[in-house]
Amino acid sequence: MAKVGIMGVGLIGRAWAAIFARGGWDVWLWDNDEGVLAAAPDLIQASVLEMTAQGPADGPLGRIHAATDLADLVKDAELIQENGPEKLEIKRDLYEQLDAVAHRDTILASSSSALIASSFTEALSGRERCLIAHPVNPPHVVPIVELCGAPWTDPTVVERARKIYEDVGQVPIEVKKEIDGFILNRMQAVLLAEAFRLIAGGYVTASDLDKTIKDGLGRRWAFMGPIETIELNAPGGILDYCERYGAMLHNLSSAAVDETLWNTENYKEVAGSWGETPSAEYIAKKSAWRDERLAALGAHLNHSPDFEPQNE
Amino acid sequence: MAKVGIMGVGLIGRAWAAIFARGGWDVWLWDNDEGVLAAAPDLIQASVLEMTAQGPADGPLGRIHAATDLADLVKDAELIQENGPEKLEIKRDLYEQLDAVAHRDTILASSSSALIASSFTEALSGRERCLIAHPVNPPHVVPIVELCGAPWTDPTVVERARKIYEDVGQVPIEVKKEIDGFILNRMQAVLLAEAFRLIAGGYVTASDLDKTIKDGLGRRWAFMGPIETIELNAPGGILDYCERYGAMLHNLSSAAVDETLWNTENYKEVAGSWGETPSAEYIAKKSAWRDERLAALGAHLNHSPDFEPQNE
Repeated sequence: MAKVGIMGVGLIGRAWAAIFARGGWDVWLWDNDEGVLAAAPDLIQASVLEMTAQGPADGPLGRIHAATDLADLVKDAELIQENGPEKLEIKRDLYEQLDAVAHRDTILASSSSALIASSFTEALSGRERCLIAHPVNPPHVVPIVELCGAPWTDPTVVERARKIYEDVGQVPIEVKKEIDGFILNRMQAVLLAEAFRLIAGGYVTASDLDKTIKDGLGRRWAFMGPIETIELNAPGGILDYCERYGAMLHNLSSAAVDETLWNTENYKEVAGSWGETPSAEYIAKKSAWRDERLAALGAHLNHSPDFEPQNE
Repeated sequence: MAKVGIMGVGLIGRAWAAIFARGGWDVWLWDNDEGVLAAAPDLIQASVLEMTAQGPADGPLGRIHAATDLADLVKDAELIQENGPEKLEIKRDLYEQLDAVAHRDTILASSSSALIASSFTEALSGRERCLIAHPVNPPHVVPIVELCGAPWTDPTVVERARKIYEDVGQVPIEVKKEIDGFILNRMQAVLLAEAFRLIAGGYVTASDLDKTIKDGLGRRWAFMGPIETIELNAPGGILDYCERYGAMLHNLSSAAVDETLWNTENYKEVAGSWGETPSAEYIAKKSAWRDERLAALGAHLNHSPDFEPQNE
């Protein structure tokens, strides 16, 4: 049974633990907060049961253990998935500790969304086995994982990581050069920027704008990306589409994004257009509904036929 | 039985006809091309049968007729759905003809994606009953319709149009001020601009970028829009999210979009990263697969529970 060490067992760390346990891995946990660590195995066990109720695991479920210290966490592990705070100093300190105790073949992967690997791994003697493996919340129902190494990360480490995440049912992709926000959050940011411009500018309500995605573009984007979408939108494919519509796309996308867009006045316009400020209880209940919907949608998508050019 | 007139029965016009027939409307067709008009009723009948096979129609199916001329098309119609070429001169000429023969209470709605209503309705005596009703291809499986009037469009006409499209099972939204691309195509354009930047810049392959949407953000966007998505991404909802992450979103979305992005070299990079140029046959087969997937996804989404804050 392959071993993974989960460093930090808040929401994201527990979701990772559940994913690896469902994938049949031996899961070891560590957290600086003793109370969080003590509560984690039971919480994760419950998540695993919920996940496997949505569909059978491919093999035997893994076991979940609390480690006694950092050395216990990393011993014989294939991979450490680190989910610490997004603070540069804390991250640097953590990686110094991990690098000192982990076997040189153990991959050190960070769930960080805000920091790139080169910002906290440069000085490590084992820096070539460090990379970002950025999930999306909640990762047990949204399979994407963005892998992004530093310039010194060994390409075979990225390749090994890709296989590991695929092995446990996720969908890893590779960000080939470091860039803030990696790919997914950059795509979300430009969409939100345009949404804020249109709502705050009085062109559309927040509710109607949301419908253009969920009852429009999002229907395709749930099973085809934006590039595969445009492949079908011109008789000659992507190049033909670009030649026909490039000038229009340029026109529609070239409004500047600056501090006049991302300011408190606009935030209030958008929040006000959406409705009342929600209570913490509302957010919690609605998040549970969202995760159930994501799980059901994932099952639907997994059972839908891929395109098979030869068999059609 | 309410009557709709469909002006122009290419792909989009035929899809509109099928939607209204499924909705129980009496559907009349007109096209300047006699051959296209003659073939249309049978093609539309087949689409209606296919659509109702995916789920029962709520009432009796409507009937489909070819009109003998423009006056026959518009007589006693509640709504004319116009699907002519996206050329300003043609559109102006068409609306002069329609405005001259249609009863003043008949709504004149254009499927145009590229032209705004004020560009071709200003000089009409019945200009207050003209608006854009922009669908997404293929409209029988993607329900969004963007309604956008000119400054002189009567608000009660927009309201009547909203009810009509809802009545036949679509999801109309209102664009409250004219803007190029309306809402949906602007959202798509900014996403594609960032995608082109990242692929042509060597950060990611086209295939991996697509996965960040279909196995990532698109999972949520199929049933929640981008604003509802961020409502759940901070403990205090949208305003809290903006205050926490606004500076980051600004940073991630502020790269300029200019002619260095939308050029032939980048088009070739993106098309080359995706793969071979597809044949017309491949595009046709894959489009049929896409439409089947959209229909199945639509059925899944229609049968999924909405969030009910009181009952959870």
